Amino acid sequence: MSNPLILCLNGPNLNMLGVREPELYGRQTLADVETAVRAKAEGLGLDVDFRQSNYEGELVTWIQQGHGSIAGVIINPGAYTHTSIAIPDALRILTVPIIELHFNNSYRYADRAFRQLSHVRPVATGVIFGFGAAGYLNAVEAMNNILNPPFPKS
Amino acid sequence: MSNPLILCLNGPNLNMLGVREPELYGRQTLADVETAVRAKAEGLGLDVDFRQSNYEGELVTWIQQGHGSIAGVIINPGAYTHTSIAIPDALRILTVPIIELHFNNSYRYADRAFRQLSHVRPVATGVIFGFGAAGYLNAVEAMNNILNPPFPKS
Amino acid sequence: MSNPLILCLNGPNLNMLGVREPELYGRQTLADVETAVRAKAEGLGLDVDFRQSNYEGELVTWIQQGHGSIAGVIINPGAYTHTSIAIPDALRILTVPIIELHFNNSYRYADRAFRQLSHVRPVATGVIFGFGAAGYLNAVEAMNNILNPPFPKS
Amino acid sequence: MSNPLILCLNGPNLNMLGVREPELYGRQTLADVETAVRAKAEGLGLDVDFRQSNYEGELVTWIQQGHGSIAGVIINPGAYTHTSIAIPDALRILTVPIIELHFNNSYRYADRAFRQLSHVRPVATGVIFGFGAAGYLNAVEAMNNILNPPFPKS
Amino acid sequence: MSNPLILCLNGPNLNMLGVREPELYGRQTLADVETAVRAKAEGLGLDVDFRQSNYEGELVTWIQQGHGSIAGVIINPGAYTHTSIAIPDALRILTVPIIELHFNNSYRYADRAFRQLSHVRPVATGVIFGFGAAGYLNAVEAMNNILNPPFPKS
Amino acid sequence: MSNPLILCLNGPNLNMLGVREPELYGRQTLADVETAVRAKAEGLGLDVDFRQSNYEGELVTWIQQGHGSIAGVIINPGAYTHTSIAIPDALRILTVPIIELHFNNSYRYADRAFRQLSHVRPVATGVIFGFGAAGYLNAVEAMNNILNPPFPKS
Amino acid sequence: MSNPLILCLNGPNLNMLGVREPELYGRQTLADVETAVRAKAEGLGLDVDFRQSNYEGELVTWIQQGHGSIAGVIINPGAYTHTSIAIPDALRILTVPIIELHFNNSYRYADRAFRQLSHVRPVATGVIFGFGAAGYLNAVEAMNNILNPPFPKS
Amino acid sequence: MSNPLILCLNGPNLNMLGVREPELYGRQTLADVETAVRAKAEGLGLDVDFRQSNYEGELVTWIQQGHGSIAGVIINPGAYTHTSIAIPDALRILTVPIIELHFNNSYRYADRAFRQLSHVRPVATGVIFGFGAAGYLNAVEAMNNILNPPFPKS
Amino acid sequence: MSNPLILCLNGPNLNMLGVREPELYGRQTLADVETAVRAKAEGLGLDVDFRQSNYEGELVTWIQQGHGSIAGVIINPGAYTHTSIAIPDALRILTVPIIELHFNNSYRYADRAFRQLSHVRPVATGVIFGFGAAGYLNAVEAMNNILNPPFPKS
Amino acid sequence: MSNPLILCLNGPNLNMLGVREPELYGRQTLADVETAVRAKAEGLGLDVDFRQSNYEGELVTWIQQGHGSIAGVIINPGAYTHTSIAIPDALRILTVPIIELHFNNSYRYADRAFRQLSHVRPVATGVIFGFGAAGYLNAVEAMNNILNPPFPKS
Amino acid sequence: MSNPLILCLNGPNLNMLGVREPELYGRQTLADVETAVRAKAEGLGLDVDFRQSNYEGELVTWIQQGHGSIAGVIINPGAYTHTSIAIPDALRILTVPIIELHFNNSYRYADRAFRQLSHVRPVATGVIFGFGAAGYLNAVEAMNNILNPPFPKS
Amino acid sequence: MSNPLILCLNGPNLNMLGVREPELYGRQTLADVETAVRAKAEGLGLDVDFRQSNYEGELVTWIQQGHGSIAGVIINPGAYTHTSIAIPDALRILTVPIIELHFNNSYRYADRAFRQLSHVRPVATGVIFGFGAAGYLNAVEAMNNILNPPFPKS
Repeated sequence: MSNPLILCLNGPNLNMLGVREPELYGRQTLADVETAVRAKAEGLGLDVDFRQSNYEGELVTWIQQGHGSIAGVIINPGAYTHTSIAIPDALRILTVPIIELHFNNSYRYADRAFRQLSHVRPVATGVIFGFGAAGYLNAVEAMNNILNPPFPKS
Repeated sequence: MSNPLILCLNGPNLNMLGVREPELYGRQTLADVETAVRAKAEGLGLDVDFRQSNYEGELVTWIQQGHGSIAGVIINPGAYTHTSIAIPDALRILTVPIIELHFNNSYRYADRAFRQLSHVRPVATGVIFGFGAAGYLNAVEAMNNILNPPFPKS
Repeated sequence: MSNPLILCLNGPNLNMLGVREPELYGRQTLADVETAVRAKAEGLGLDVDFRQSNYEGELVTWIQQGHGSIAGVIINPGAYTHTSIAIPDALRILTVPIIELHFNNSYRYADRAFRQLSHVRPVATGVIFGFGAAGYLNAVEAMNNILNPPFPKS
Repeated sequence: MSNPLILCLNGPNLNMLGVREPELYGRQTLADVETAVRAKAEGLGLDVDFRQSNYEGELVTWIQQGHGSIAGVIINPGAYTHTSIAIPDALRILTVPIIELHFNNSYRYADRAFRQLSHVRPVATGVIFGFGAAGYLNAVEAMNNILNPPFPKS
Repeated sequence: MSNPLILCLNGPNLNMLGVREPELYGRQTLADVETAVRAKAEGLGLDVDFRQSNYEGELVTWIQQGHGSIAGVIINPGAYTHTSIAIPDALRILTVPIIELHFNNSYRYADRAFRQLSHVRPVATGVIFGFGAAGYLNAVEAMNNILNPPFPKS
Repeated sequence: MSNPLILCLNGPNLNMLGVREPELYGRQTLADVETAVRAKAEGLGLDVDFRQSNYEGELVTWIQQGHGSIAGVIINPGAYTHTSIAIPDALRILTVPIIELHFNNSYRYADRAFRQLSHVRPVATGVIFGFGAAGYLNAVEAMNNILNPPFPKS
Repeated sequence: MSNPLILCLNGPNLNMLGVREPELYGRQTLADVETAVRAKAEGLGLDVDFRQSNYEGELVTWIQQGHGSIAGVIINPGAYTHTSIAIPDALRILTVPIIELHFNNSYRYADRAFRQLSHVRPVATGVIFGFGAAGYLNAVEAMNNILNPPFPKS
Repeated sequence: MSNPLILCLNGPNLNMLGVREPELYGRQTLADVETAVRAKAEGLGLDVDFRQSNYEGELVTWIQQGHGSIAGVIINPGAYTHTSIAIPDALRILTVPIIELHFNNSYRYADRAFRQLSHVRPVATGVIFGFGAAGYLNAVEAMNNILNPPFPKS
Repeated sequence: MSNPLILCLNGPNLNMLGVREPELYGRQTLADVETAVRAKAEGLGLDVDFRQSNYEGELVTWIQQGHGSIAGVIINPGAYTHTSIAIPDALRILTVPIIELHFNNSYRYADRAFRQLSHVRPVATGVIFGFGAAGYLNAVEAMNNILNPPFPKS
Repeated sequence: MSNPLILCLNGPNLNMLGVREPELYGRQTLADVETAVRAKAEGLGLDVDFRQSNYEGELVTWIQQGHGSIAGVIINPGAYTHTSIAIPDALRILTVPIIELHFNNSYRYADRAFRQLSHVRPVATGVIFGFGAAGYLNAVEAMNNILNPPFPKS
Repeated sequence: MSNPLILCLNGPNLNMLGVREPELYGRQTLADVETAVRAKAEGLGLDVDFRQSNYEGELVTWIQQGHGSIAGVIINPGAYTHTSIAIPDALRILTVPIIELHFNNSYRYADRAFRQLSHVRPVATGVIFGFGAAGYLNAVEAMNNILNPPFPKS
Repeated sequence: MSNPLILCLNGPNLNMLGVREPELYGRQTLADVETAVRAKAEGLGLDVDFRQSNYEGELVTWIQQGHGSIAGVIINPGAYTHTSIAIPDALRILTVPIIELHFNNSYRYADRAFRQLSHVRPVATGVIFGFGAAGYLNAVEAMNNILNPPFPKS
C-alpha cells in the first residue's frame, strides 16, 4: 500500500532560490530544499510531489489534477500569494489539509507590507512563515501532525 | 552545562483551555500542552519555562526578567496579540528568536478578522498558526531549527 | 434553594463615581449604585455579586471564576470597553446572558466618538446606555426578563 | 389631571411582527406588544400613543404633531434608523426624552453591520437593544425613571 | 403673457420654521418666507409656486409635474439633501436652472459634518447657503440673473 | 387553476420613462414595457402584477401585501436601490425568488459610481443590468427558469 | 451566409464544474452547459465558439484573435474577474457587445465580498449573475436582444 | 460719514479672467467684474476695496491690514481655497461677515472633486457658487442683507 | 508649608532604561533620570513623586490616589500611550496641569507611525517629545512655567 | 567585443498596437516601434532584445533568463503593471538599471485612475510616460545616460 | 568668539499675536515674545535671529540663508505647518537641531484636528506644544540641552 | 525667425542643488544643469528660458506671462508639486505641451510616499522621473519629439 502523497507547490521566482536576494531567502537552491523535504517526508511515511512554475494557470492545473489522489498540499505561492484568486479557488475544490508557507515574515519589513495580503490564507488549514528554508521541514511535520494528530480529538 | 532555556508564554484565557470553545481550541488542557511541550523539548535538548497570565503587566515583567538568561521565546499572546504594545516593546528588548503562535487561522473566519492584527508579529522571527495544540510542538521544533539550522548559512 | 446569581462587574475609574465628571456620571457613588442594584435584584429574586477593578487581568479572572456558577453578567467595562479583547474572550467562555451597560450615550458627543467602539458588544445579549445610574436598575430588570420572559417563545 | 403621554412609534415592516423572521423578531404580533406596553405604562401612571407607519414622511409628521403635547418618545425606527435624517431632525425639534429601541443587537451578526449606523442615536437620550419584544417594557420603565429619577440629582 | 414660473420647494421639517432650533433657523415662519419670496419675485417679473412636504415621494412627484411648465427650481431639500437620490433623479429630468439652498453653512459646525453631503449638488446650477431666510431672496435674484444674465455671454 | 403571479415593481421616476434621459433609458414608455412584459409572461404561463410608485412606503406596503400570494418579484427599485433598507427588509419577509433589474450598467460610467451600491442585492436571487428595457424580458425568462429549471438539480 | 458568431469564454476552474462546490455551482458539467448553450443559440440563429482556459494569457490571446470575426462575447472570467486587467484591456479592443456572466450573486454572501470587484464590468454592455448555469441561456437570449432589439430605438 | 467698506479679494489666476477656460469662467475680464461690483455696491451704499494677488502671503497681509477698518469680506480664493490655511487663519482674526465665492459649482464635475475641499468654508458666514461672474453681484447683495437684515431677528 | 507635589509617572518597560534600545532611549537608567528630575525640581521649589509600573491598572490607581493632593502630572505612558483609555480617563478626573512626555519623536521614523496615536494627548495641557532623557527636565521647567507663568495673563 | 544588451519587454495587448484604441496608443505597430528602437540603440552602441507576451509567467521567465547577460531593462508591462507582483519580483533579482515605460499619462484621465498603481515602480530606476511611442526612444536615451552619465558623479 | 546663533522663525499671522484669538494665543505681542526669548538665550550664551513672514517663499529663503552659519532652528511655522513641504525641504538641507513649536495643543480641540498634521515634524529633532508663549522659553532651554547635553552620551 | 521658446521652471530649494542631499540630487549645481540644458536645446533648435523661485506666487506669475509666447513648459515644481493647485491652474491656461520632471523616483522610498501626489500631473503631457539631473536632457529631447514627432500621426 502506497504512502499518502503530499503535493508541494512552489510559485514564481522560487526557481531562482540561491540567487534571489540571498540575505532574505538564503543560499540553498530549490533542489536543496526538495532533497531535504523528501528526506523528512520519507522518515514520516509520506510521499512528495514537488513542483515549481512561473505560470499561474499551470499551478491551477496541477492543483486540479491532484483532486482525488493527494492527501495534502504544502504551497509557497510566491508572488501569486498576493495576486491570484484562481489558485485558492482551485485549492477550495480539494478537501485535504492545506499549509501555506513563506520564507520570510513580511510583517518585520515596512516596505513589504503588500506581501501581508494573502488570498490563499482563508483556504489554508495552517500557516507557517519566517523560518526560511527550514519552514519546509516544519510544514512537513505539521502536515504529518494533521494526518496523525498528537492530541486526542475528544 | 545546562540546556538552552525557552520561555513559553501564554496570555489571557489560555488557562481555560479544554473549557473554552473546544471546537476551536480543542479539548486538551493547558497542562496537557505543557506536558507535551516539555517532552518534545527534552528530546531536542531544550529546557522550557512554561507560564500563563491574565495580566498584561505580568507578561511584560516575565519577559523583562528573561533578559540575559533565555535562548528563545515561544509566545501565544491570546487577546493581547491584538491590543498590547507593551508586550512587543518588552520582547524587542531581548535579542533572542521569538515565535508567535496561535491555535487558529483567523483568516478562515470572517467574524474573526479583528484577530488578524498582531502587534507582536513585527518583532517575531517566525509565525505559526492554525494547527491547534499541535502548533506548540511545531514551534518547539522550529525554535530548535533556528538554534541549530538544518541548512548551512553560507 | 438559592437564587440565581448575577455577576455585576465595573471596570476602571468607576470606583471614582461621584467625583468623576459628575455632570456626565451623576453624583451618586458606586456604593449608592450597589445598594440600589441589590434592592432591585432582591425584589426580583436575584442575588448579586458586585465588583470593581482597575485591572483588566483581574476582571478577566473574575469572569473565568464565574464559569458554572452564575446565571448572568451585567458589565459596565468602563474604558476597557474600547481596548480589551481579553474581557469579551472571557465572557465568550460563559454561556449565560450578558448585558453591556454604560452611563452615557456616547453618540450624543462628537468628542466621545472613540467610545462608540465596543469589543464587548458582539458577545452581549443586550445593550443599555444613556440612562446614568438608573441604567443599572434597567439592566437588572432586563436580565430578569431574559431569565423569565414576559412574552411566550413560540 | 391627565397622565404624561408617551409617543411610541414603530417604523417600516414592524407591522409584520410575528411573520417577519421570527427567529430574530419573535412570534408575538405588534398588537401583542402594544397590549403589553399599555399594561406596563398604566401601572406606572403613563399614557401611550402607539403607532406604526411604512412612510418616513408620516413618521416625521406624527413627531411634529407631538410637539407641545407629549412627555417622551419611544421609537423603534426600523429600517429608517439607518437611512432617515428627517426623523431625527423632527425629534430634535421636541425637547422631551427620547429612547431609541431595537429588537436585536446588530453587533452580534457580521452580516448586519450596516444596521449599526443610526442617525437617531445622536438625538436619543438613551438606547436599548437586544432584548426582543421585552425591550419595549424596559423602555417604558426607563422612560419612567427619566421622568421620576430613582437617584437624587445633586 | 404670463411671467416665468419658479418652483420653490421645501423639504421635511421646514414647515416647523420659527419653532425649530430658532438660533439656527431664525424666528420667521415658512409663511413669512413665502411672503417675502413672492414680493421679491414679483418685483423681478417672476411667478412662484411655493410648496413644502415631509414626503420624499411627494417632492419627487411635484418636480415631475413641473416638467415642461416651469422656468427654474429653487429647492431647500432639508434632510432629503443628504438621503434622497430620487429627488435629484427627478430634477435631472428637467432642463431648467436649479438652485440648491440651505439656511446654514454646515461647514461651520463640526457636529453637522454629515450635512455637507448633498446628492442634489451635482445637478444644481448654483448653490447658496449660510444666509438664513435671507438666502431665499438671494436665490430669487440669482435665478433672475440666470434667466437675464448681467454679463454678456460672448 | 391560476398561473403563478409575478410582482413587477418599479421605483421612483420610472413613470417618466421615454422622457427621462432617453439616451440612457430609451424612448419607450413604462406602458410599452408593461405591454411587452405581459406578452412575454403570458407565453410562459405567468401572470404579472405591474406597478410603479414614487413613495418608498408604498413600495414597502405593496411587497408586504404580496406575502403568501405571489410566486416571485422582479424589481427595478430606481433610486431607492441605493437609499432604501426598508424595501429589502420587506423583500426579506417573502420567501420567493427575487430578481433585481436595472436599465443601465452603472459600472460603465465613472460619474455614476454611487449607483453601484444596492441594498437590494443581498436579498436578490439574481441580478440583471445593462440591457435597457429588454432587460425586463430577460428577467421574466430568468424568473421562469428559476420556477422551471432547465438543468436538473441533482 | 453564416450566422453571427458568439465567443463564449470560461475562465479558470470552470473546467471543474460538477466537482467544484456543487451547492454553489450546480452538478452539471461544463460540457452540459456547452450543449445547452449551443441548442439555445442555434434556435436564435447564432453560432457559438465555446472555450475554457486556466491561463490569463491564453484568454487574452483568444479575445485578440476574435477581433474582426465575432459578433459578441459572453464571458464568465472566473477568478480573473477580480484580478485581471489584461482581459478587459483585450475586450476593449473589440467593438462588439460584451456580456459578463457569473453563476452566483456574490452580494448574498458576506465572505465573498472580494468577488464583487470586477475589472471586466466597466467594459461590459450588460451583466447577469445569480442564476447558476441557467444564466448562460439568459446571456444568449440577452445577446440576441442586443443584436435584434425588441424595442425600437427612436 | 463714510460708507461701510467691503474688502473684495481675488486669489491666484483670477487676473487671467477672460483668457482662462472661458467656457468655465466666462469672457468678462476681472476689470469688468470690478466695475459691476462697484456699481452694485454704490447702489446699496457700500464702498469696495477690490484686489487680486497670486501670492498667498500677500492675501494674508491684506486681510490683516483690514482688521478694524472693514465691514465685511467677499473672497474668491481661487486655488488657495483648497491649499491655504494661512488665509482662513487671517480671516478668523477679523470679526466681520465673510462670504466665500466661486465661479463654478465644482460638484457638477467629477474631475474637479478636489475643488470641493475648502479650508475657508468653516470661517465663512455664507457661501455662493455656480453663478459665474454674476455671483459677485449676489455676494454684494447677500453682504448687504447681513448688514441690513430683511427679516427681524427676534 | 510644603512645596507643590508633581506626580511623575513612567509606564511599561521604562524600568529597562539603559538596556532598552540605547540608540533610541540613551544609556542612562531610570534612577539617573529620577535623580536629575529631583535636582531640577528642588531648584524650582517643587516636590516630586516618581514612579514606574508595567501594569495599566496600577498606573490608573496611582493617578486616582493623587486626586486632591498633587499640583501637576508629568507622564511618560510608554506603550500605554497608544493602547490605554483608562489612563486618560483617570487623568481627566484630576483638574491639574498634565504634561505628556516621550523620549523620541516618533514622526521621524516611518516604522514607528503607530506610536503617533496618543489617547493621553487630548487630556494633556502640553506635550514634549524628541529630547531624550533631557525632556524630563524640560517638562519640570514647563510645569513650573504653568504654575508660575512668565507672561502676564491679561 | 559586443555592445551592452538592453532587454525591451512588452506586456499583454501591446501586440495589438495600431489596432488598439489608436487615439490613445497611436497608429504605429509594435514592429514599427521595434524598428525605431533598434535604430536609436544602434546609434548609441546598444544592442536590443525586443519581446512581447500576453503571459505573465513568460515575461517572468524571460526576465530570469536575462540574469547575468543583460545591461538594462526597458519594460512596458501593459496591464501587468497593475496586477503582477511576480514581474517586479523577477526584476528585483537583476542588478541592472530598469526603466518603466507607458504610452499614456493615466493621471490625465479620471476613468483610468486604476492605471496609476504600479507594482513595478518601486523597483524601477526611472519612469517615463505620456509620450506615446516616442517614449521608447526617450527610454533608450535615458538608459544610455545611466550607462554613460552626462554629469560627473562626484 | 561669537555665541552659537539660533534662528527663531515665525510663520503667517504670528505678527498678529495679542490681537488674534487671545483666549488661544494669549495677549502678549510677538515683540514681547522676542524680548523674553532674547533674555533667556543670553543667559544661556546663545544668540538669536528672530523673524516672521507671511510668505512661504520668504521663510524658505531665510532657512536656506542660514545654511552654514546657524547652530539650531526653533520654528513655529503657523499655518504652514500643515500645508508647506517646501519649508521642511529647506530645513532638511541644514544639519543642525530643529525644534518645532506651537502655542496650543491641537489634540485638545475636536475642531482643530486638521492642525495635527505637520509636514515639519518628520524633520524636527524635538517638538513642544501646548504651553503658549512660555513654550518659546522651553524651546530655548531644550535647544541648549541639545547643544550642551545634561546626560552623558555613552 | 526665432526658435521655439521652452520655459524651464524650477521650484523651491532647487537653487540649493549640489548642497541639498547630494546622494539624492547629485553634486551638480543648478547652473550646471542650466548650461547642459541650453547646450542640448541649442542642438535641437530650441531656445530656453530657465528660472527658479521659492515663491509659489512668482512661479504662477511667470507661467501666466508665458501665455502666447512660449512653445512648451518643462517644470520641476519641487515641493510645490505636492501642495500647489495654483501652479497647475496657471499651466492649464496655456495650450502648449507640459513636461513634469523630478530628480528621483519617489516610489522607491517608503518614507517619501507623500511625494507621489502631484497636482501638476493631470495637466502634464508627459512625465519623467528617476534619472537625476540627466532627466532635464531627456525632457528637452522629449519636448522636441512632441514638437517634431518621430512617428507619423495617421
